[in-house]
Amino acid sequence: MTAGCRFCAIVAGDLDAQVVYEDDQLVAFLDHRPLFPGHTLVVPRAHVETLPEVPADLLTPLFVLVQRVAQALVDALGAEGSFVGQNNRVSQSVPHLHVHVVPRRRKDGLRGFFWPRHPYEGDAHMAEVAATLRRALQEPSAPVSRSDP
Amino acid sequence: MTAGCRFCAIVAGDLDAQVVYEDDQLVAFLDHRPLFPGHTLVVPRAHVETLPEVPADLLTPLFVLVQRVAQALVDALGAEGSFVGQNNRVSQSVPHLHVHVVPRRRKDGLRGFFWPRHPYEGDAHMAEVAATLRRALQEPSAPVSRSDP
Repeated sequence: MTAGCRFCAIVAGDLDAQVVYEDDQLVAFLDHRPLFPGHTLVVPRAHVETLPEVPADLLTPLFVLVQRVAQALVDALGAEGSFVGQNNRVSQSVPHLHVHVVPRRRKDGLRGFFWPRHPYEGDAHMAEVAATLRRALQEPSAPVSRSDP
Repeated sequence: MTAGCRFCAIVAGDLDAQVVYEDDQLVAFLDHRPLFPGHTLVVPRAHVETLPEVPADLLTPLFVLVQRVAQALVDALGAEGSFVGQNNRVSQSVPHLHVHVVPRRRKDGLRGFFWPRHPYEGDAHMAEVAATLRRALQEPSAPVSRSDP
């Protein structure tokens, strides 16, 4: 538990939340300022900050639960679909990893989050960015760097 | 390969894209209308439509790659963070599962995607929604329902 972390406090039961699921690794609870009712946050009990830092043995249960919540929004709340979103460092309101799972309906008024776009300056620019990323991703044995050593 | 699917065509090499990573299960390529340069889409080679339908043996490699791309945006492109987003059915431009991994910088001008919010009518409403979801998620052996039988 990290002092001052709101989500650690929810996990510990020191701060009230509408918990919809919990097990030994994960807790899911309603966002108190929902995009739409049913907007759920899935968090690990352990204080992990960003997605690249999630250890392998937590990654699978985390996204299995995200899958289950996304399906429950459809099955139990009548949503037509869902939005899954997760911010790392920038726009991350609480620095304890949380995956938003949001019920969606057609014409629900949610503004596209893909705005404004910033196009490439041209094909050469796009190719250059791709080459940079390709090199970074073609190191199969490179460990994902962590913020803590 | 699903006829008419743009992402199946990219996976098959029939449609050009700036591929930044590929292996036997997954392909990652640049979004051609990026939110910011480096905006990457991670897709399974198999035509799976939504997250709840992703089979267990694909879920882990899918999100390991999302982790690696998110880290590469920071390490190789100098991003300060990332946004990971994924739409199921509603707002899903191509009905072939794709996870957006978008480089973020502070004050980059991206509008919060959490707008407008729709608050609960009150504590009782919030508790009722939570209870509905809790019931749906407390069936530990319930298989995630699929769109195909």
